[in-house]
Amino acid sequence: MSIRIGIIGYGNLGRGVEIAVGAAPDMELAAVFTRRDPASLTIATEGVPVVAAAEAEAWKDRIDVMIVCGGSATDLPVQTPQYAQWFNVVDSFDTHARIPEHFANVDAAAKASGKIGVISCGWDPGMFSLARAYANAILPDGKDYTFWGKGVSQGHSDAIRRVPGVKDARQYTIPVESALEAVRAGEDPELTTRQKHTRECFVVLEEDADAAAVEREIKEMPNYFADYDTTVHFISEEELQRDHAELPHGGIVFRTGATGRAKEHKHLIEYKLTLDSNPEFTTSVLAACARAAYRMNAEGQCGCRTMLDIPPAYLSEKSGEELRAHLL
Amino acid sequence: MSIRIGIIGYGNLGRGVEIAVGAAPDMELAAVFTRRDPASLTIATEGVPVVAAAEAEAWKDRIDVMIVCGGSATDLPVQTPQYAQWFNVVDSFDTHARIPEHFANVDAAAKASGKIGVISCGWDPGMFSLARAYANAILPDGKDYTFWGKGVSQGHSDAIRRVPGVKDARQYTIPVESALEAVRAGEDPELTTRQKHTRECFVVLEEDADAAAVEREIKEMPNYFADYDTTVHFISEEELQRDHAELPHGGIVFRTGATGRAKEHKHLIEYKLTLDSNPEFTTSVLAACARAAYRMNAEGQCGCRTMLDIPPAYLSEKSGEELRAHLL
Repeated sequence: MSIRIGIIGYGNLGRGVEIAVGAAPDMELAAVFTRRDPASLTIATEGVPVVAAAEAEAWKDRIDVMIVCGGSATDLPVQTPQYAQWFNVVDSFDTHARIPEHFANVDAAAKASGKIGVISCGWDPGMFSLARAYANAILPDGKDYTFWGKGVSQGHSDAIRRVPGVKDARQYTIPVESALEAVRAGEDPELTTRQKHTRECFVVLEEDADAAAVEREIKEMPNYFADYDTTVHFISEEELQRDHAELPHGGIVFRTGATGRAKEHKHLIEYKLTLDSNPEFTTSVLAACARAAYRMNAEGQCGCRTMLDIPPAYLSEKSGEELRAHLL
Repeated sequence: MSIRIGIIGYGNLGRGVEIAVGAAPDMELAAVFTRRDPASLTIATEGVPVVAAAEAEAWKDRIDVMIVCGGSATDLPVQTPQYAQWFNVVDSFDTHARIPEHFANVDAAAKASGKIGVISCGWDPGMFSLARAYANAILPDGKDYTFWGKGVSQGHSDAIRRVPGVKDARQYTIPVESALEAVRAGEDPELTTRQKHTRECFVVLEEDADAAAVEREIKEMPNYFADYDTTVHFISEEELQRDHAELPHGGIVFRTGATGRAKEHKHLIEYKLTLDSNPEFTTSVLAACARAAYRMNAEGQCGCRTMLDIPPAYLSEKSGEELRAHLL
């Protein structure tokens, strides 16, 4: 029997989950839930109902895992605990500082309902967290580095769009090559924010906007750009559409460590992602975590989990025997 | 209370486990067991008893996890099930083709005793297996590549030493740079054995040996060298000791995959290890797996496990709260 998946929200993430579920032999899409008027929404999969989010509870016996595809700022803190009342839930909550609080809220809701909630699935948090946790467990005496990019930061792109005179924008986060080289060379460098990443901005101006003023305002923006070497390119709307329509991303997690009686042996662990589509990779992880959520709940487990709590085999559609014979 | 670790066998692996346990704040070394005369063996850690392997059973209430540090060819198939009668056990069994059989034997013994056995810990199998399993679960439509090296292959070094006229030898396995580039470029190449790795041999000849005959015999050796581009260097014993005394190794696991309605988005996952000491990295993994074995058994679990079955958080000495707050 297939695992019956529900999707809450049909933006970039919801559409990506739909694709990932369609590619999984052991899952089927049961319904898509939306806060919009369901009649206004046409989804890509034929024959799958679009339902008002307010009616989700009525689906509690027809959906095994609900994948909550909202934003971390305001949607998920409310939605994930809410739907955990009725469903096993999976989300991609990525506000690192608020994970303990979100975990506690989902844990309480899921324990009350006897369901499983898996939060913060994706690549950071998610696959990068796994890379850090494994590497720290193996090399307790070492140093961690995380680099992001080259890729589109949607948060930084949004920040530029809020600058007066900006019509549209795309911002790429780029790791500094010399910093990567220093880590790979085993130099264990201490790196400032500026030494790790640069920021490259492609900006479409409103008519009559003051380019110099826009550039200055972007480069001086605290938190987002002031601590970085930032480049601003002004381009036409056509160029933005043509050259910057995709959402590539990626990054690298390193851990360096030493072993030996005199710590004489150095080791380097490098986990690198190069992704054409940030949302589609994230949702591929969400789909695998939905499989794990289903299995953990079928065993009688309930409460909140992260990817750090999931036995890797639970993410795979292959059996333990197949994994041992072919991938171990 | 510390996790009390026992070590069976005091070769490269046993000594590495001793170092890793010494570096772990939550573990203590309880005893080292040997098939040699215990009086003949002095270990690095002061105050820790060396005990005859035949007396291990008497220690069953004084050791939480026994790390079995034997060879995969003849030691572990016997020892791991044997010690699983009395202890939680961890090993580094690395004969990939025989893992299902070894798993079944350890599973039967550990279920009978109510203990946990974790087999095939290390980096391949081990960390590389995890990289493959995670990447396959996330990108079901893709291609796997594993490259080893640059590093010393002890099996190939041993094979050269068996050639008449060879006094000593060290063999390095080296990935072919153009093959790595093709994978990283997303070309999804089909690679033959020869296209993936080269083999470089450093050989010390016996007096009066025929260098040309030795070189020919090495290069034509089936399975080990015949399918590879092999280079043979003849060096002095002093050079071998000076330049080739260490056991570095490493490698890369890649998975390429595609997502999107038309599979238009490509993704590349790369997991790379660069290790100064193959045995010390392997034993760092064994120590982390011992921690997980202890925790799984404390929960009431028994039977055989591999790293694919272990929730990552169980490998870490940090609590779930700490991991979520700092590494997730």
